[in-house]
Amino acid sequence: MIRYILGESIERCDESIVRSLKEALADVIACTIAGCQTEVARIVKTFAVQQWARGKSSLFLSTHALQAAGATFVNATMANALDLDDGHRLVKGHPGAVVFPAVLAAAEERETTGKAFLTALLIAYEVAIRAGMLAHQLRPEYHCTGSWGAIGAAAGVGRILGLSVEQLRHALGIAEYHATYSPMMRCIDHPSMLKDGIAWGSMTGISSAYLAQQGFTGIPSLFGTKEAAELVEEMGMLYRIQQLYFKPHACCRWAQPAVEGAKYLAERHRLSHREIGKIVIRTFRESARLSKKAPANTEEAQYNLYFPVAAYLVFGEVGPRQVLRELANEEILSLMSRMETQIDCQLDAAFPEKALSQVELCTYDGRRYLSPVMQAKGDYDFPLTGEEKKAKFFRLTEPFLGRAGSEELFERIQQVDQLANIRQLTAAIARNLSD
Amino acid sequence: MIRYILGESIERCDESIVRSLKEALADVIACTIAGCQTEVARIVKTFAVQQWARGKSSLFLSTHALQAAGATFVNATMANALDLDDGHRLVKGHPGAVVFPAVLAAAEERETTGKAFLTALLIAYEVAIRAGMLAHQLRPEYHCTGSWGAIGAAAGVGRILGLSVEQLRHALGIAEYHATYSPMMRCIDHPSMLKDGIAWGSMTGISSAYLAQQGFTGIPSLFGTKEAAELVEEMGMLYRIQQLYFKPHACCRWAQPAVEGAKYLAERHRLSHREIGKIVIRTFRESARLSKKAPANTEEAQYNLYFPVAAYLVFGEVGPRQVLRELANEEILSLMSRMETQIDCQLDAAFPEKALSQVELCTYDGRRYLSPVMQAKGDYDFPLTGEEKKAKFFRLTEPFLGRAGSEELFERIQQVDQLANIRQLTAAIARNLSD
Repeated sequence: MIRYILGESIERCDESIVRSLKEALADVIACTIAGCQTEVARIVKTFAVQQWARGKSSLFLSTHALQAAGATFVNATMANALDLDDGHRLVKGHPGAVVFPAVLAAAEERETTGKAFLTALLIAYEVAIRAGMLAHQLRPEYHCTGSWGAIGAAAGVGRILGLSVEQLRHALGIAEYHATYSPMMRCIDHPSMLKDGIAWGSMTGISSAYLAQQGFTGIPSLFGTKEAAELVEEMGMLYRIQQLYFKPHACCRWAQPAVEGAKYLAERHRLSHREIGKIVIRTFRESARLSKKAPANTEEAQYNLYFPVAAYLVFGEVGPRQVLRELANEEILSLMSRMETQIDCQLDAAFPEKALSQVELCTYDGRRYLSPVMQAKGDYDFPLTGEEKKAKFFRLTEPFLGRAGSEELFERIQQVDQLANIRQLTAAIARNLSD
Repeated sequence: MIRYILGESIERCDESIVRSLKEALADVIACTIAGCQTEVARIVKTFAVQQWARGKSSLFLSTHALQAAGATFVNATMANALDLDDGHRLVKGHPGAVVFPAVLAAAEERETTGKAFLTALLIAYEVAIRAGMLAHQLRPEYHCTGSWGAIGAAAGVGRILGLSVEQLRHALGIAEYHATYSPMMRCIDHPSMLKDGIAWGSMTGISSAYLAQQGFTGIPSLFGTKEAAELVEEMGMLYRIQQLYFKPHACCRWAQPAVEGAKYLAERHRLSHREIGKIVIRTFRESARLSKKAPANTEEAQYNLYFPVAAYLVFGEVGPRQVLRELANEEILSLMSRMETQIDCQLDAAFPEKALSQVELCTYDGRRYLSPVMQAKGDYDFPLTGEEKKAKFFRLTEPFLGRAGSEELFERIQQVDQLANIRQLTAAIARNLSD
């Protein structure tokens, strides 16, 4: 594992891997920008600016710059604030939002090249995803992203800092031990700003690498266990960043197959939401455990099964507008009151490798339509097209950067490996802003 | 639980509880002062001064003052750095080191009275101990102090900040979710500076209260579970701070009954360590899992079964000097090489309620002595006397504050509830120091 962290370089990777990495980077940057308008972003920024020292690591869409750990906490909060950020099925969580802010903050602090940043980001993704797979295998409870994601963040930041073999070992162990405790299912039952523990985990990960640099010692990492051997072996050969999913809808991934089922039926049969008398969602147990109540805040809207399905049927999209400003929409709430859920044992058995649902719509005039078993769109075996991903980028960034600013940022992401200083990337986000 | 946090006051407590609280305060202050000379303290201070902003919360024996979270991280590191700090058997960990630095940092930031500080400290202890008992009951893994301790820290700090009922609820839930992940037994097998996760957990706890104050939301706390009912019910009636143990020796509690056994035999039979040919330690499983190797650093010396027993036999004490400067002492290492361990199923069954061991010494000339089954000295049912506790305070503080400074500090601790501003307490620690 340490050999991989020290030896990896985007220069030795296939072009397709660098392409995947840039797609992930564009997606997480767009999500972070869009996430700045949430209440949780405001709260966390106030806290962070008070606690952490001024530094060289930027907060997105802000004139403040903090020491690396503080900036990481803020940006990671925003990256996942709309639940629109990337994920990986086998870790049941979000690698991008937890590793990107930490690697970026360290790269800004060190003013690394774009190439060094991109290499560290790749390392962080690869390590985080495997740490997540192992955490779920080795320990009985469901681990939130912040727990295993911290380990990936520490690995990427460790590479940026130029840690020695010994320091890297310690950094991984510190991150594993300090990362969040995560009674995750209580956060499904009671949606809160904690969500996936991403921001605290990301901050914990970067802090672990900085602590290791000073000589702080940690436990041997979980990558030394026998269960890890195969996953460590494959590193540098199999790139799991190519198995990421990208989200079209701003809500928990577990609700998205149902959104796809509703979308399929509404488009195929040209149904207006006003015709629909009843909606039955057949799904897996975790999905069924999501809230079904009228949401009181954006977190409850995102961790909801009915809200996004209804929002999609009313608006034709589930984006920042829906989960931030349409919580009390009468048509959405009315549709939600006509839904029911059935747990299907076959769909249940396919989870977590696949997240599947099936939707049945009954119209007021007695027609009944059944969707096929649907997968959430955006997975690596059912991907968004390049154009769809690009459209998502512009949909999320234009309200803040304008068309020209979004285009410039998109271009800079495509050229990130050519940048002499990673701050040329963040400068394209911060320009012309004030708090 | 929230009612208890909001309603508690040292003014309504029996005098014996206030006395217990002041004893605990004196002990943890002395441990924090003595802990400043460790390598981990230097490392953490460098990291903290870099990352967190300057503020009003002091770092012990330093001219620096940081924002509350940063100061907490440093002081909590020092509080447990020598493993001399208080503990509670039923949580298998250290309430004082995890709650005191957080409550103090918040009190300094707010310049509270000594009375308000003392009340918040009492709350933090009572909540932390019950959170620890619950954590071990509700979840299968062994939880390090940082995990449940963060919840107590959040409660005490929440009281200092004057959080509302709702904000307090969130603070407890944030702390529970963000606190450390803690594969604790890997830290027993491989001693490192992570130890009990105390410093990160303490910092997490105070940050949770400050986040809640800004409006950050959390999960419902574990105190809402049915398993918690009895523990919540007893609050304000049973004071578990009166069940604390205080440590005479600077090492893991699990090794201390064996030190007591060796001490008993050496004193009773006036044995010099040079006469001892063999030592057999009968103990419980966890104790037997402690390292038995020659320590490479202070953490390995503290999380060791043989080192403290040998150090006691050679020096008549296991204090800062032994675990910091006598790691390569030939006589200690020679004694360690003549030890062996047996797991005893009766002693094992008594754990964790009691930590018991029995020692057998054989001299080179063929005498054989067997100690009674020994309990670690300092527990509430086998306490250090008031004089012994006071002697420990002076032994730990005098090298740094001198006799007069130690006496002044000890007096100020006895009068802490009379202080108009808690900084009058920390001023007595910081005086005449430079970094």
